[in-house]
Amino acid sequence: MRTFARLLTVAGFSLLLLSSAQAADLAAEDAAIRALDVEWLAAVNAKDATATAAFYAEDGQIMPSGAPAAVGREAITAVWQSFMGLPDFAMNFEPTRIVIAESGDVAWEIGFYDLSFTGESGPVSDHGKYVVTWTKVNGRWLVGADIFNSDGPQS
Amino acid sequence: MRTFARLLTVAGFSLLLLSSAQAADLAAEDAAIRALDVEWLAAVNAKDATATAAFYAEDGQIMPSGAPAAVGREAITAVWQSFMGLPDFAMNFEPTRIVIAESGDVAWEIGFYDLSFTGESGPVSDHGKYVVTWTKVNGRWLVGADIFNSDGPQS
Repeated sequence: MRTFARLLTVAGFSLLLLSSAQAADLAAEDAAIRALDVEWLAAVNAKDATATAAFYAEDGQIMPSGAPAAVGREAITAVWQSFMGLPDFAMNFEPTRIVIAESGDVAWEIGFYDLSFTGESGPVSDHGKYVVTWTKVNGRWLVGADIFNSDGPQS
Repeated sequence: MRTFARLLTVAGFSLLLLSSAQAADLAAEDAAIRALDVEWLAAVNAKDATATAAFYAEDGQIMPSGAPAAVGREAITAVWQSFMGLPDFAMNFEPTRIVIAESGDVAWEIGFYDLSFTGESGPVSDHGKYVVTWTKVNGRWLVGADIFNSDGPQS
């Protein structure tokens, strides 16, 4: 019976270890995604379209208003280049909610953005909202879909 | 040693049972979400705004172009009522990609929509794209965020 009890203890600890290995550290994943958002925004404001596109998965999509979705990093780079080419382009975006799966492999994010540039008839500013979806690929969070729209008519 | 071997076998089967209980049946979850999309679209085309809003989580959001996000079922119902009130309103939407977490509690979906109605100067049709995010609440998939925009300028 002592051997039996000892084996049950070993089995119990094994189960504990297994379940802790399977459950993701959601606070750490949340912090990782927020850190990526900060780096991503820095790449945007540095007007580095290639670095900006590298935050998306190979099959990621950017889905701008008024144009079809652009799929893949090359097409995503071109979309960002068109934004970054606007005179006095500047952007801010911030997550307001991040939801992460218990398994730590899929997440989605809601946030807002502010965009400004100088248009043909003067300064333009736009405030809107976005959803970014994330998937972990080889241990790294990458953007699967990036969609956004304006809260008001473009001014 | 025979007791030891038997206990190891029991422990092994326990681990197998545990891991199969934890891993979600992703094909079944995918089918469940696609079935919900079909029901949701039927509620939209029945012009039942309350039934349409019931597909969203209590804290879900609809994020239309040209307006701030509407949060919660009451606000979501009002947004759908405004769409459904358009003369000859009709809608189609279809997922093109659904990504589900291994844990089966979080998912996201990309798709396209077609919207038509009769405007002041005649028939209007709009084609665009959307992202819908899902979270499982008490065993039921509910929409966390629903955002969409047009592929072209509104005609």
